[in-house]
Amino acid sequence: MSTNKFLLPESLTGIYTDFYELTMAQGYFLNGLGNKRAVFDYFFRKNPFGNGFTVFAGLSDFLDALEKFRFTDKSIKYLKKLGFKKEFLDYLQKFNFKGDVYSVKEGTPVFPKEPVVRVEGSLLETQLIETLLLNILNFESLIATKAARIKKAAQGRVVLDFGMRRAQGYASIMASRAAIIGGFNSTSNVASAMLYGLKPTGTMAHSWIQSFKDELTAFRKFAELYPDNCILLVDTYDTLKSGVPNAIKVAKELEAIGKRLVAIRLDSGDLAYYSKKARQMLDKHGLSYVKIAVSNQLDEQIIRSLLEQQAPIDVFGVGTNLVIGKPDAALDGVYKLAEIDGEPTLKLSENIEKMTLPGKKNVLRFVNGNGLFAGDAIILEGEKNVSKFYHPVFKEKQKTVKGMKSEKLLSLVFEKGKRLEKPENIEDITLRVSEGLNLLDESHKRFENPHIYKVGISKKLMTLRDNLKNKIVENF
Amino acid sequence: MSTNKFLLPESLTGIYTDFYELTMAQGYFLNGLGNKRAVFDYFFRKNPFGNGFTVFAGLSDFLDALEKFRFTDKSIKYLKKLGFKKEFLDYLQKFNFKGDVYSVKEGTPVFPKEPVVRVEGSLLETQLIETLLLNILNFESLIATKAARIKKAAQGRVVLDFGMRRAQGYASIMASRAAIIGGFNSTSNVASAMLYGLKPTGTMAHSWIQSFKDELTAFRKFAELYPDNCILLVDTYDTLKSGVPNAIKVAKELEAIGKRLVAIRLDSGDLAYYSKKARQMLDKHGLSYVKIAVSNQLDEQIIRSLLEQQAPIDVFGVGTNLVIGKPDAALDGVYKLAEIDGEPTLKLSENIEKMTLPGKKNVLRFVNGNGLFAGDAIILEGEKNVSKFYHPVFKEKQKTVKGMKSEKLLSLVFEKGKRLEKPENIEDITLRVSEGLNLLDESHKRFENPHIYKVGISKKLMTLRDNLKNKIVENF
Repeated sequence: MSTNKFLLPESLTGIYTDFYELTMAQGYFLNGLGNKRAVFDYFFRKNPFGNGFTVFAGLSDFLDALEKFRFTDKSIKYLKKLGFKKEFLDYLQKFNFKGDVYSVKEGTPVFPKEPVVRVEGSLLETQLIETLLLNILNFESLIATKAARIKKAAQGRVVLDFGMRRAQGYASIMASRAAIIGGFNSTSNVASAMLYGLKPTGTMAHSWIQSFKDELTAFRKFAELYPDNCILLVDTYDTLKSGVPNAIKVAKELEAIGKRLVAIRLDSGDLAYYSKKARQMLDKHGLSYVKIAVSNQLDEQIIRSLLEQQAPIDVFGVGTNLVIGKPDAALDGVYKLAEIDGEPTLKLSENIEKMTLPGKKNVLRFVNGNGLFAGDAIILEGEKNVSKFYHPVFKEKQKTVKGMKSEKLLSLVFEKGKRLEKPENIEDITLRVSEGLNLLDESHKRFENPHIYKVGISKKLMTLRDNLKNKIVENF
Repeated sequence: MSTNKFLLPESLTGIYTDFYELTMAQGYFLNGLGNKRAVFDYFFRKNPFGNGFTVFAGLSDFLDALEKFRFTDKSIKYLKKLGFKKEFLDYLQKFNFKGDVYSVKEGTPVFPKEPVVRVEGSLLETQLIETLLLNILNFESLIATKAARIKKAAQGRVVLDFGMRRAQGYASIMASRAAIIGGFNSTSNVASAMLYGLKPTGTMAHSWIQSFKDELTAFRKFAELYPDNCILLVDTYDTLKSGVPNAIKVAKELEAIGKRLVAIRLDSGDLAYYSKKARQMLDKHGLSYVKIAVSNQLDEQIIRSLLEQQAPIDVFGVGTNLVIGKPDAALDGVYKLAEIDGEPTLKLSENIEKMTLPGKKNVLRFVNGNGLFAGDAIILEGEKNVSKFYHPVFKEKQKTVKGMKSEKLLSLVFEKGKRLEKPENIEDITLRVSEGLNLLDESHKRFENPHIYKVGISKKLMTLRDNLKNKIVENF
């Protein structure tokens, strides 16, 4: 199923923005600068979770939103009340984004400081969409990255998204999409599943058990209804004295009609201990095919710990920590002006790491002799190839990539206000993530102090930046 | 302006839920249990951020969503494809929530373990809305609480919500509402401002500065356009050598036409250092009226540290850490069955703290001789008053409240599927927060190890719970 969706009500599209984008846009408009050509870069400064990479996600949702970006009569009326000028509002009323977007493909592993998306168009239009772009891409990339970490910790076992109830409101819809992109098997979020063609999944709540006269009856009724897809929650009263024995009874009753209990679910207590005990009890009754699913505040570290303890768990239901991207809960992506009216530009700021890279850029990803990613060079769009690239701050640190194959990461995906290709299937994006991560050396994927993947700049870009910087500093 | 809004597209309302709510609902329906009367409690187990209280928020958005909760033809078709049965889908097609909701008022400080919302209705309908309720109330309460903490740290200075770009996607809209409830002065989020009648606010981005030939020109052009509301961002190139001197020039030019520069904004570097230097420079030029606004990864601890250092800051723009509710990023609220068919019920689970309280309950909030909140007693709805209440686990810990005035916190807000009153103005909810917090002893409001506010249970409730528990345990 296609992933072409946009969730905002039409009346909110254009004004889904920070106030200052509108005051600046009005300023450009009234000063006659609105039609200057501008180039903005989207990039982030730090991988979330101390991770060695970030999974880029959200592009399709962003492009959909961009196509539908409009100011309705209602929002124009509102802006008028806020004091915006008539001539500007007349312009906004007819506004739609007519610029171009170059982007890395969704699902690609990306790294700090490199441009991931480049937006070109009039200064006014490229400024107006800043907040929308950041809001969508920062969030989905955060969650896809978290999902990939949890998937790795689970070592091939099934991982399910159970996070909707603790998600940040309606963010849950995008969160579940990003979870699937990052490698989750399915989601409890029905709305997101319908919108994006994801697989919906679920078991039962304690309230189901409590709604029957006893646990055994509750289990039996569920098994009667869902004999082919029955997962029983066993911790409502007492896991080992009541839940598991009752589940075993029902499993045997299912066997008698030629069916198999799929799994039991543990949702409290020491999951390592209870999963081992439950496994023994199930096995003793010839139920080694019944899987054990667990949930309760899981994340990649707890899953790792459970598996280190040899806990016989087959399925992990992960909620809160996945869909809010704990502990970081935000990706620090920014959107910075790189060129105006054909002239490269930069900002210095009081933090060296906040200095930007000027000009229209692309990224070359090199592949070494083993077929693994060897490093990324940020280049000026005109450059054909480079044999060496440089650390952005410490020039003496260089990486030679002579003779290595490379691929340009950013390509045109949106031209003159229109998507160039229809949205990808979610499965294809998920596949791109696993293929991409296969090409990334293990050292970049470990949880503790991952080896830093090399991202540098070409000689030409460095020269351009340094000249610009010197010119600015001279003026003080 | 009213706060009556609902953001989800109509096609997603009914299916904005966890999959298991639907499988359970179908189970109740097919087993003829759907019409049993059920009572569910919404409560949380832990204040976020190690805080001493939680600001309850999101009620109005939840009630709106509840009124609009429907299954459209599109979602029915989707559920059919997933294998749901025809007779159940026929029922869903006509479904709307006809139950009752009792709630604490939005903006009230609330505490762990006490019911904050109570939902009554048929088992089927009360189960179906679980995810929706949790998703909205958990998030807005989280952010309102964070906002109240930041507001407190700022000691009466202006606090602005700048978080939209790092918010978790469309969660930004509810986040900004909750920020205002918690005490923020205004928000950069235009969509949220329009929807909820909040005050929108903003300054300028670095791209504005970069779009002109030099910083001074960029400042002048902005001042020309917005002479009455001009805030200049001074760190694009060099704060003290370029930004502040240029801002001073423009301030003088504004003075010449009888206007006043409102503020400068610092967005990088050591904010304590730069704010002091900038203050000196402004004062030296007779510009003591020009305020200093700062931003850049602020939270309550950084604001506190800046003010401890006597940084002369007047306005704090807070983004990411506010709107994502860092570091917790989720409130752990749950929705638990308390009564079924007139019979109180509970679940035990393998964690003592996960045991629930049975029966139809309310909360009495006591006020001591100084007019301050003295503690909350969870009572059975029938109980008139209590003179003593008990720690839920350690019965020997008791609190005598004899003779104290008390107020019932939960009242009927939604009856037979309809809101009883129209949505409150956001200002009234904000006011309720500050009034409520004024009645809470300082010891509960400090950041480090706040004194735990006493929440206990009545003797009757304790007896009911213990009898039920014993009855269940006897059965093993």
